[in-house]
Amino acid sequence: MSKAYVLLSGGIDSSTCLTVATRNYQGSVTGVSFDYGQRHTKELDHAHEVCAFLGVQHLVKKIDGLIGVGGLTDKEFVVPDASYSELPAGVSPTYVPFRNGVMLSLITSIAVTDPEAEAIFFGAHADDAENWAYPDCTPEFIGGMANAIYIGTYHKIRLFTPLMFLDKAGVIKLGDDHDTPWELTWSCYKGEEVHCGVCPTCISRRDGFELACVTDPTRYKS
Amino acid sequence: MSKAYVLLSGGIDSSTCLTVATRNYQGSVTGVSFDYGQRHTKELDHAHEVCAFLGVQHLVKKIDGLIGVGGLTDKEFVVPDASYSELPAGVSPTYVPFRNGVMLSLITSIAVTDPEAEAIFFGAHADDAENWAYPDCTPEFIGGMANAIYIGTYHKIRLFTPLMFLDKAGVIKLGDDHDTPWELTWSCYKGEEVHCGVCPTCISRRDGFELACVTDPTRYKS
Repeated sequence: MSKAYVLLSGGIDSSTCLTVATRNYQGSVTGVSFDYGQRHTKELDHAHEVCAFLGVQHLVKKIDGLIGVGGLTDKEFVVPDASYSELPAGVSPTYVPFRNGVMLSLITSIAVTDPEAEAIFFGAHADDAENWAYPDCTPEFIGGMANAIYIGTYHKIRLFTPLMFLDKAGVIKLGDDHDTPWELTWSCYKGEEVHCGVCPTCISRRDGFELACVTDPTRYKS
Repeated sequence: MSKAYVLLSGGIDSSTCLTVATRNYQGSVTGVSFDYGQRHTKELDHAHEVCAFLGVQHLVKKIDGLIGVGGLTDKEFVVPDASYSELPAGVSPTYVPFRNGVMLSLITSIAVTDPEAEAIFFGAHADDAENWAYPDCTPEFIGGMANAIYIGTYHKIRLFTPLMFLDKAGVIKLGDDHDTPWELTWSCYKGEEVHCGVCPTCISRRDGFELACVTDPTRYKS
């Protein structure tokens, strides 16, 4: 029996990845989340709820203090009230230093010790890569990591990124087709009681549902 | 002023990498070591001594419990008394699950937050890659990681692997040309009082000095 490990933040993209993986690897999927010092640790609870709903095992690994300080791990950082397209060019203010390289390497290290594991799923999507907002979500980065993972595990583990050429609306359409439990997912970087509705990821979430013509069950503060 | 970060275990290869980097980046080098649950934590003390000797800053990051269990992180594992060429084909008994992927990603995460950093040095050499003994030391793995690192850091950090096409004797010749303090380095997987002389890495060390015609200052148990 083959198994898959899914990098899971509890947001729309990784939760969609999880439902896609669950359909392909029935009963043999593990979600893995990282507590890397993000201010919105609330997403970890949501990741757990999504896994519980799908009957999927969930691992949380604490790596607080290991990732360099920047963006979402910087306590001084103020989450901007703006859409991604309104942010200044250059290094994204929400870029976390090589976060996806670190998380993909660690999930690989876990998966390679599981005799049945053959796949890792990672939910980077096209909007993440647009204008190099998150360089560790680009097809070029993914290609490098996919090679390093496959080769570095004696050709055992392959990296799957089924969303990499979909925009947010495309992800939501795909996720809806796979019965992703949207009401359990969390996007907001502020991590308050409900989604703020005005930070980059809330705006992307709201616009995505609208463009996908999928009912958005999210409660937004404004 | 440009700076370099060097992945440092305290062995022959990474210490040679450090002396090479130190000549290229005078006064602007940081050695980074990881405590990943290896039984031979003694190597961390040696890494520190090498850095102190060279006047280089040394960081140690504890990631015990994050890397999957296998090879040198498996408490049940018995270090074989044999040369690398005598080990069975397939997964090397001393392979640590995707160790180099994890350590390279973490050192990248640290380096990318340093405004002056531009380089990471990694001391994989050709004997590591021979017969896929350590797949996470092969040119193919290195190519994948080098791309992922360069792209995933907004084209800021490049991966340098000056030993990747040298065998152990070649590394020792290069290291000797750069005044690597051999007496401070540590190779043995057993981590006892002196080098055991019979484990794969001790045999490789001893043979390397002999082939390179460089005086070996190491005390071996047998």
